[in-house]
Amino acid sequence: MLILNQKQIESLLSRSEVLEAIEDAFTIFQEGNFDMPDRMHANYNNITLLLMPCFTSQYFGTKLVSVNPQNQAIGKPSIYGNMILNDSETGEPLALLNGAALTAVRTGAVGATGMKYISKESSESVGIIGTGTQGFTQALFACTVRPIKKINVFDLDDKKLTEFINKLQKKLPEIEFNGMNSSEELVKKSDIIVCATSSENPVIPNDPNLLKDKCFIGIGSYKPNMREFPDALFSQITKVWVDTPFAAKESGDIVTPLENNLLQKNQVNTISTLVANKHYDQAGTTFFKSVGMALFDVVVAEYLYKKAIKENIGTQADL
Amino acid sequence: MLILNQKQIESLLSRSEVLEAIEDAFTIFQEGNFDMPDRMHANYNNITLLLMPCFTSQYFGTKLVSVNPQNQAIGKPSIYGNMILNDSETGEPLALLNGAALTAVRTGAVGATGMKYISKESSESVGIIGTGTQGFTQALFACTVRPIKKINVFDLDDKKLTEFINKLQKKLPEIEFNGMNSSEELVKKSDIIVCATSSENPVIPNDPNLLKDKCFIGIGSYKPNMREFPDALFSQITKVWVDTPFAAKESGDIVTPLENNLLQKNQVNTISTLVANKHYDQAGTTFFKSVGMALFDVVVAEYLYKKAIKENIGTQADL
Repeated sequence: MLILNQKQIESLLSRSEVLEAIEDAFTIFQEGNFDMPDRMHANYNNITLLLMPCFTSQYFGTKLVSVNPQNQAIGKPSIYGNMILNDSETGEPLALLNGAALTAVRTGAVGATGMKYISKESSESVGIIGTGTQGFTQALFACTVRPIKKINVFDLDDKKLTEFINKLQKKLPEIEFNGMNSSEELVKKSDIIVCATSSENPVIPNDPNLLKDKCFIGIGSYKPNMREFPDALFSQITKVWVDTPFAAKESGDIVTPLENNLLQKNQVNTISTLVANKHYDQAGTTFFKSVGMALFDVVVAEYLYKKAIKENIGTQADL
Repeated sequence: MLILNQKQIESLLSRSEVLEAIEDAFTIFQEGNFDMPDRMHANYNNITLLLMPCFTSQYFGTKLVSVNPQNQAIGKPSIYGNMILNDSETGEPLALLNGAALTAVRTGAVGATGMKYISKESSESVGIIGTGTQGFTQALFACTVRPIKKINVFDLDDKKLTEFINKLQKKLPEIEFNGMNSSEELVKKSDIIVCATSSENPVIPNDPNLLKDKCFIGIGSYKPNMREFPDALFSQITKVWVDTPFAAKESGDIVTPLENNLLQKNQVNTISTLVANKHYDQAGTTFFKSVGMALFDVVVAEYLYKKAIKENIGTQADL
């Protein structure tokens, strides 16, 4: 069994190859060549354990994620994850991957796939609201799909904002970084706006004029009580693009506008229809909302596993 | 993360310590200090994937098992398994264990715990029907709980029978081994009889006199269409002892006698009531049926993890 830790995953990947893998995943999704049972939730004390299996024709995988928000108080990560990748013919376990690194990478690539299909090709600036791991990989992958020159960043926590910019600047030395004083300033100055927070209330002002002709990417809200985008967004768009139809059940960014009649069910479309057919929807104000799915994990784990074998990276453990 | 493979698990364990861990698991079960969500099944082509999480106060674990019966045709194991053990406070993954080795060990100890509580203390002979991995560990653990002098073995396949005895003889050099010509001969010559086959029909003759005053341990049947014990058994016993109430839904050895009115629901009792209270039920003909549960896996994985850390065995992988 091949073990791939965070550093090995980061050193191994090419962002353009991960983006190709995610486009493949959307094509698999569109063609239905996969089986993804509903994820299983288990709760015990402060811990939520998520078990996320998915089968594709050659590989299957299970991501196990445990979440304990109280870990931050003792200086530990609130999320731990592992992914086991197996051969779909025999069931043999092939690899164990660091789940946090895998999730960050695939989420970055899913967001950027949204940008590729629904943002204007000339977009030169991206604004990131929220300075966690997901915001970080959104910024990195944005630069692979669009000719980004400026990255604008906003976070309520100034210290986190500065650290985020310093860390990202090292990875992207040719980009101009700007800390923003408000999300309003960020939206004004950015062509593409990514929200990657755990907010329960919109983090963008409820002003239709501000939102005009921008591309919005929603990453943070994955529960019905979490919401990042204001009501005004839904007066500016004709469609919401989602990565999976579950987004309409899981994310408050879709659930709440549907409940409040700001959005109709038939306006919610799966972006795999664009990706699989190489169609684009880049005019006016556009919105892509991602909640993630295990299919992305399996397809990106397959890519990482094959590349690691080829380049002789990782630790082989006899199990 | 500590990785423990099959050889390390086998070299690490003391059978009497594993038996103690299983008695602890039965006490935890009896006291309700655990949370074991229903196992999740997923099917894809020839593969069944089982996801089995269980939480105890200090640790939780998830066993992932994939089953593909067609692997045997290509010389591969039909079952692959992994167990991930986590800290119950933080969720942090602590260990990855070979699931096949863990399952064999804990199943051996569960069967032998049954023998300890419901077989006569003077039992000197054990008969094993079925020469797979489970039969092997049942024989090993039987010798830890009873003063076994003779092990009788029956299998329809003579070659497997000879190989099984040769392999077991090396582990138990002081025991007398005898290959039996029939299951009838085996039952006659044995005080304790273990069935560990995948049979869909009883493997023991339907003769009440043959079964008298013997102790029967059922390991093989874990589906409603699998059955190892004959109708006659149920005329000889007043109770069926099970490792978990799920046995009455999962195993044909309980399901079919209940359906055929040979057994009543109130005769099915969980053996944890004996173990937790140090009560015994050894008179006359007795029967213990095990189907296994994730609680056993977590408690034995905890034991192996702690001992491996103490004795510096296993491979540390930075994940």
